[in-house]
Amino acid sequence: MSEHLAVTAASGLRAQAAALDAADELAPLRKLFVLGEGVYLDGNSLGALPAHVPGRIADVVSRQWGELRIRSWDESGWWSAPERIGDRIAPLVGAGPGQLVVSDSTSVNVFKAVVAAVRLAGPDRTDIVVDATTFPTDGYIAESAARLTGRRIIPVDPAAAPSVLGPATAAVLLNHVDFRTGRLHDLPALTAAAHAAGAIAVWDLCHSAGALPVGLDEHGVDLAVGCTYKYLNGGPGAPAFLYVANRHQRAFDSPLPGWNSHTDPFAMDPRYTAAEGAVRGRVGTPDILSTLALEAALDVWDGVSVDSVRAKSLALTDFFLECADAYVEGGLGGPDSRVRSLTPADHRSRGSQIALRCAEAPAVMAELIARGVVGDLRRPDVLRFGFTPLYTGFADAERAAAVLADVLARLPAA
Amino acid sequence: MSEHLAVTAASGLRAQAAALDAADELAPLRKLFVLGEGVYLDGNSLGALPAHVPGRIADVVSRQWGELRIRSWDESGWWSAPERIGDRIAPLVGAGPGQLVVSDSTSVNVFKAVVAAVRLAGPDRTDIVVDATTFPTDGYIAESAARLTGRRIIPVDPAAAPSVLGPATAAVLLNHVDFRTGRLHDLPALTAAAHAAGAIAVWDLCHSAGALPVGLDEHGVDLAVGCTYKYLNGGPGAPAFLYVANRHQRAFDSPLPGWNSHTDPFAMDPRYTAAEGAVRGRVGTPDILSTLALEAALDVWDGVSVDSVRAKSLALTDFFLECADAYVEGGLGGPDSRVRSLTPADHRSRGSQIALRCAEAPAVMAELIARGVVGDLRRPDVLRFGFTPLYTGFADAERAAAVLADVLARLPAA
Repeated sequence: MSEHLAVTAASGLRAQAAALDAADELAPLRKLFVLGEGVYLDGNSLGALPAHVPGRIADVVSRQWGELRIRSWDESGWWSAPERIGDRIAPLVGAGPGQLVVSDSTSVNVFKAVVAAVRLAGPDRTDIVVDATTFPTDGYIAESAARLTGRRIIPVDPAAAPSVLGPATAAVLLNHVDFRTGRLHDLPALTAAAHAAGAIAVWDLCHSAGALPVGLDEHGVDLAVGCTYKYLNGGPGAPAFLYVANRHQRAFDSPLPGWNSHTDPFAMDPRYTAAEGAVRGRVGTPDILSTLALEAALDVWDGVSVDSVRAKSLALTDFFLECADAYVEGGLGGPDSRVRSLTPADHRSRGSQIALRCAEAPAVMAELIARGVVGDLRRPDVLRFGFTPLYTGFADAERAAAVLADVLARLPAA
Repeated sequence: MSEHLAVTAASGLRAQAAALDAADELAPLRKLFVLGEGVYLDGNSLGALPAHVPGRIADVVSRQWGELRIRSWDESGWWSAPERIGDRIAPLVGAGPGQLVVSDSTSVNVFKAVVAAVRLAGPDRTDIVVDATTFPTDGYIAESAARLTGRRIIPVDPAAAPSVLGPATAAVLLNHVDFRTGRLHDLPALTAAAHAAGAIAVWDLCHSAGALPVGLDEHGVDLAVGCTYKYLNGGPGAPAFLYVANRHQRAFDSPLPGWNSHTDPFAMDPRYTAAEGAVRGRVGTPDILSTLALEAALDVWDGVSVDSVRAKSLALTDFFLECADAYVEGGLGGPDSRVRSLTPADHRSRGSQIALRCAEAPAVMAELIARGVVGDLRRPDVLRFGFTPLYTGFADAERAAAVLADVLARLPAA
């Protein structure tokens, strides 16, 4: 594109961004977050800080811990926080109350879910079908669960999962959105396929919870886990959640039956009797500071519908792709393109991120970050940009694309 | 005792308390903590807040998360926190560097340790010997580990453990200090007995870490877990630690091989390759707020020796027993005693708490707490008082005993 045409295109896209931001019903939420200069497109790795959270944490530390001390387990609601906060997250993933509990890391919850799924499926089912493109921890943990329960792992591309399901399938562990490409998998159809084979469907929602509608109850998902520090902005390493559908709770048989999951924990009973309900997914004492930071952070969702978040997310990623295609020399899909989108163009298959393959990705991302456009690198060659509709606007998307184009223009091709 | 003699005894013990506090080299540490009115004797459940921690957490939340965001994983040292803080705790439990890692709850770490111990012991050893008097979560989790690894549980009183050890013993899981009675078990002798049988010794240090010398390296302990929110004051639900002796690290085979324990986590390698060293005990993303609160809290240990803490702990518990025996009608051990100590009188068998059996324990503890003397109840009939030498003084011990005597005097016997 000639310089004149490029300037015209940029001017038009900037005007378009301004108009989109002005019409955005979620735009007022941005002021609820601490956002400095620059464009933060890594909220799919660590969500931005809601501005009211520091005050809430200060109260937890100084008053609840410092003054009330041990009394806070009751008086400040510490003890019941895991299930209380689970119920705050539930509507964001389409779950009724009493099915989610917040505790431990995602990895630990994957372990609980996969072992419990195998036990729900019964002794005759030998196979655990696992997303071969998954965030690796799910695969590592599923492998450990298989080893400990005498099952075997069948790795599969999620879209192809139905072809390997059968009477030997105990459980299917899939990611709703692929962490690398941003591909959104068809949760309703894949769950139905698992059920048709008599298997238990376990979903990892790390990259969809808070980004798009999940519909756990509606689609009959059996078990699910998810992260709270990405689109839910719970803070670094905030505890993950575990969903156990009501119909499975009485048979949910945790491999980590810690005292917090006992029906009467303070009886200090040498015999284990599992609690009823979501609390059965708890293990040990919850990390209160991280847990209550998450609880505070969830306030930004009051009155926000996930459908509106999804609509904006798709508009943002569409617009970013449009700007990048216009600004980057050679565009995104042409024969001379130096960047190519790995994220599906079809809305039905797109999460809330754009992944661009680029031979010079490490140098490009370093320079983007130096210039205030913060995405992340997924080695060896993926530039990953997360779009978080609560605090990312269309002007951010335009600016990120413009800086990307400029960085590429100044960098020799590999 | 007549009223006159009682007043004389109280006056003498109060003077003695003042003299002991004046001579206490650890007394200046008290001002490092937030302590209100009253006497806090529940630091063995939740340690008091070190006064500098709120400022440190505010920085973690507002600057590290709020401003640096994702960059903090490197720039603020978040990623390496679990092993860095492990090395801060190491000298407090007699371990050289590179053997401790901080992550997850105690229950989750018990699971890692017991499964790993069974694997270290080899397939021919079928038995897991477990402290029958243990804090229940250890027993529940050990039972799960046994079920998943095809082993069986042999419950035993720790002191009697040597009598059940043999060629079938894979692992021995014992508590260093009993959570209920405060009995201190003989870690060197029991570890040696486990080794003589060819078994792996796993110790739970929840009630000894930060309270008394442990000597993990000196006594050749194989694996250990411990809590950081009791005597280490890490805050509510602060992450636990896992110790893996250097000689076992290459063979340590975790049942929770999350991505944080991979040798190159950001390679996102579908195949799992365990990291070398203590980091192999990590699982998922660490809960940074709770983890860094713990790190800050450990500053109070700078220049403090565990030996001096132990000496003061024994003096405090001796003095509390002396005061209670003098003040409570009928004393602690007489035929008419309404309270009786469950904690061994012998220093070699005493942890850092006093447990008193009392038929009216629930009502007595409620009234003690109402009057500012905070211990805790262990159902059905145990009054538990923790003595934390960093911030508890002899005047506190005297006052607690005096209030206890008064509460009992006003309460009809059950």
